[in-house]
Amino acid sequence: MPGRLLVVGGDAAGMSAAMQVRRRQPDREIVVLERGRWTSYSACGIPYLVGGLVDDVGDLVARSPETFRRDHDVDVRLGHEVRGIDLDAREVEAWDDEGGRTVRVGFDELHLATGARPLRPPLPGIDHPMVHGVQTLDDAVAVEARVAGARRVTVVGGGYIGLEMAEAFVRRGREVTLVEAAGQLMPTLDADVAAPLVPALEGLGVDVRLGTPLEAVEDGAVVAGGERIPTDLVVLGLGVRPNAELAADAGVEVGVRGAIRVDRRQRTSAEGVWAAGDCCESHHLVARAPVHVALGTVANKQGRTAGINIAGGYATFPGVLGTAVTKVCDVEIGRTGLSLAECRRYGFEAVEATVEGETRAGYLPERKPITVKALAEVGTGRLLGAQIVGTEGTAKRIDVLATAIQAGLTAAEVVDLDLGYAPPFGPVWDPVHLVARQLLRALVEGPERATGTLDRP
Amino acid sequence: MPGRLLVVGGDAAGMSAAMQVRRRQPDREIVVLERGRWTSYSACGIPYLVGGLVDDVGDLVARSPETFRRDHDVDVRLGHEVRGIDLDAREVEAWDDEGGRTVRVGFDELHLATGARPLRPPLPGIDHPMVHGVQTLDDAVAVEARVAGARRVTVVGGGYIGLEMAEAFVRRGREVTLVEAAGQLMPTLDADVAAPLVPALEGLGVDVRLGTPLEAVEDGAVVAGGERIPTDLVVLGLGVRPNAELAADAGVEVGVRGAIRVDRRQRTSAEGVWAAGDCCESHHLVARAPVHVALGTVANKQGRTAGINIAGGYATFPGVLGTAVTKVCDVEIGRTGLSLAECRRYGFEAVEATVEGETRAGYLPERKPITVKALAEVGTGRLLGAQIVGTEGTAKRIDVLATAIQAGLTAAEVVDLDLGYAPPFGPVWDPVHLVARQLLRALVEGPERATGTLDRP
Repeated sequence: MPGRLLVVGGDAAGMSAAMQVRRRQPDREIVVLERGRWTSYSACGIPYLVGGLVDDVGDLVARSPETFRRDHDVDVRLGHEVRGIDLDAREVEAWDDEGGRTVRVGFDELHLATGARPLRPPLPGIDHPMVHGVQTLDDAVAVEARVAGARRVTVVGGGYIGLEMAEAFVRRGREVTLVEAAGQLMPTLDADVAAPLVPALEGLGVDVRLGTPLEAVEDGAVVAGGERIPTDLVVLGLGVRPNAELAADAGVEVGVRGAIRVDRRQRTSAEGVWAAGDCCESHHLVARAPVHVALGTVANKQGRTAGINIAGGYATFPGVLGTAVTKVCDVEIGRTGLSLAECRRYGFEAVEATVEGETRAGYLPERKPITVKALAEVGTGRLLGAQIVGTEGTAKRIDVLATAIQAGLTAAEVVDLDLGYAPPFGPVWDPVHLVARQLLRALVEGPERATGTLDRP
Repeated sequence: MPGRLLVVGGDAAGMSAAMQVRRRQPDREIVVLERGRWTSYSACGIPYLVGGLVDDVGDLVARSPETFRRDHDVDVRLGHEVRGIDLDAREVEAWDDEGGRTVRVGFDELHLATGARPLRPPLPGIDHPMVHGVQTLDDAVAVEARVAGARRVTVVGGGYIGLEMAEAFVRRGREVTLVEAAGQLMPTLDADVAAPLVPALEGLGVDVRLGTPLEAVEDGAVVAGGERIPTDLVVLGLGVRPNAELAADAGVEVGVRGAIRVDRRQRTSAEGVWAAGDCCESHHLVARAPVHVALGTVANKQGRTAGINIAGGYATFPGVLGTAVTKVCDVEIGRTGLSLAECRRYGFEAVEATVEGETRAGYLPERKPITVKALAEVGTGRLLGAQIVGTEGTAKRIDVLATAIQAGLTAAEVVDLDLGYAPPFGPVWDPVHLVARQLLRALVEGPERATGTLDRP
């Protein structure tokens, strides 16, 4: 009979592991320590809560602490913040907020799912109470409490979270300014792919300021790019940092950005200690290097993998491509694999191709443009990455390219893919086919031929 | 200097080959004999022409005969119907309709792109002038000429073309009856996947009659399932048959359904004779057997492959999965690979899984159900086929599964795919992931566990 499993963190990476263990080991003792008040929630849903599309914070909870306790015999303890890990003594020390005391909880196996926290650059006034991250449901509750009295909101950072929060605050009728230090939104995308996001946000009424780094927070204002911007609420969307210091202090190996290092079964360097989700590294399948990707999909898959293994089964999480999609107003964007800049950083020589496709056959009304950009490795012809931008129905098309990249397909093999066709869904040569044909041409004729329109049919 | 290339058939399979040859061999003589009046058109667009979404038949033409002649130096001869092929003499005999005479045209290499024709079962009255196929633009023009004076239309056959034509006639304000001999629409799909099509068509006002074979055509009526159905126009959607008899008569090897046999470079059994499109076979990548698939995507890819090879290059068309998508009203359907019945026929032992997913995160409004069914091979775990049904945004999701199948991925590998996630695009476990997880469970625990809802998160 395996001993107590202690899970630190009650969101996806922790609770999906707990559920896999419960499924396979009905009698095993499982204790979960969660710092906040919630379990198994969708942090990705916070913008829709703030934007008013979701009525109640509880709607974002997939499975409540009560459900875990009652239906699945999981001993969930809320308001418990772990503050130390003793691997030799096999116990953790936690602050029990309700009890107002420090407790010690022993374990036989430990699963770390401590998540990440928003980056908070060390600027004057950054700890002002109007400055919020949006990483946990408790953050969401805090933002909700403040938004009622806020007329002007400043979103700091033009990544996924920043864009979604900016749109959300507009939907709530607030005056929104978005400041981004880089010269474009979504700096992880190519500038041309990200370009349509600026008019989309401006069309919603957002005051978008590029090349405008946050410099200070004052009472009733932020200072960014040398200007004072009056504001009642500041939301940070500058990325996250893994909550892995406790693990590192306990002697667990950490890597990229300080994230916990794990193998393909989600084992850490310490015997009987596992990790999953935003607190740990992932293996990038194209770069073949460790990366830190804080996304709900990854957290769920890693948690599932950890749980199966903890329960004595065998499952692996081979890695990530960095696939991500988002939507601002009617502009949809997707990316997967490496960008050209990342290819160079990792030592790939690549050709790039860009095509303009359409969402429906050329003779049908209501068709919309789609831009697809893709990269292939010189020599092997293997697909290395792709980005896509367009309107409705665009973003999830990145999944075909992600699947092709994950399967190691070459541009020639992508041309041969038997994809679905009917006039309401696209032209007879799908944009994915077209970009692969351009890549083939670029591989043969050289990169300068890679971009442009393609002879068809 | 290579000699004259003679192309028989001026639609996608013929003209995409001609264009590839022209691109690589600017000076080569290329002659095209086309029976009808059009080149490079979208036959798939005919329902949208009839339905009034496309104004003019010319809108379905991607590149006109004049364009081919003027801009690409391709000698397109319309109204020329080839009636005999003499491989020894290296010439064909054709009826020149405008000239009212038989002509002989020599060739060094011959590319057959003769297409297919609608099945016309040998029933009483089947040659009545109100009975039309919808395979070519000339067919479309003939239907258009008759539809003005037609109040009641009968569509025979509930496959892709039948469904699209039924909807088109409704949009044109006609009274439409659809008769299908089988007990379900789309008999190539599983009955449960196809089931939502009946209420969708009935919601449009179509009188759908299943288990109702066409028995006879009379003046002003058809007889089907023993009943007389008054009608002014009959459209056949019973499938097609390859136009390959001339090739067979000339000694070119034919195979499945009499279609021309080709190798992976689109070479026929005869020296210097190539074929592409609806007149020839394809290799089924899962079944590893020849099949006859008459689809525009396949015709374009085979034509491109033939053209590159004819011009001395190297290209292959590895085969098909039978991927197909369609849409009736707001019901979207997709399929790829084999069905369970086809698995049995080809000797696969498979497990099947079905899941109900959603198009958006569970807490967002306007989310719609998606049903995904998939099959995996016992032992290897390889994905063998999938079907999908839902509303807007559903059908093209089949492409992810098609890509996975074509790449030879197993169910476990599909669980690991790094697909895009954001709440407006689906739940954190994409329906594709969910069905793969169910397949994994079925592979381990046996098929009886394969269907149902899945523990999540």
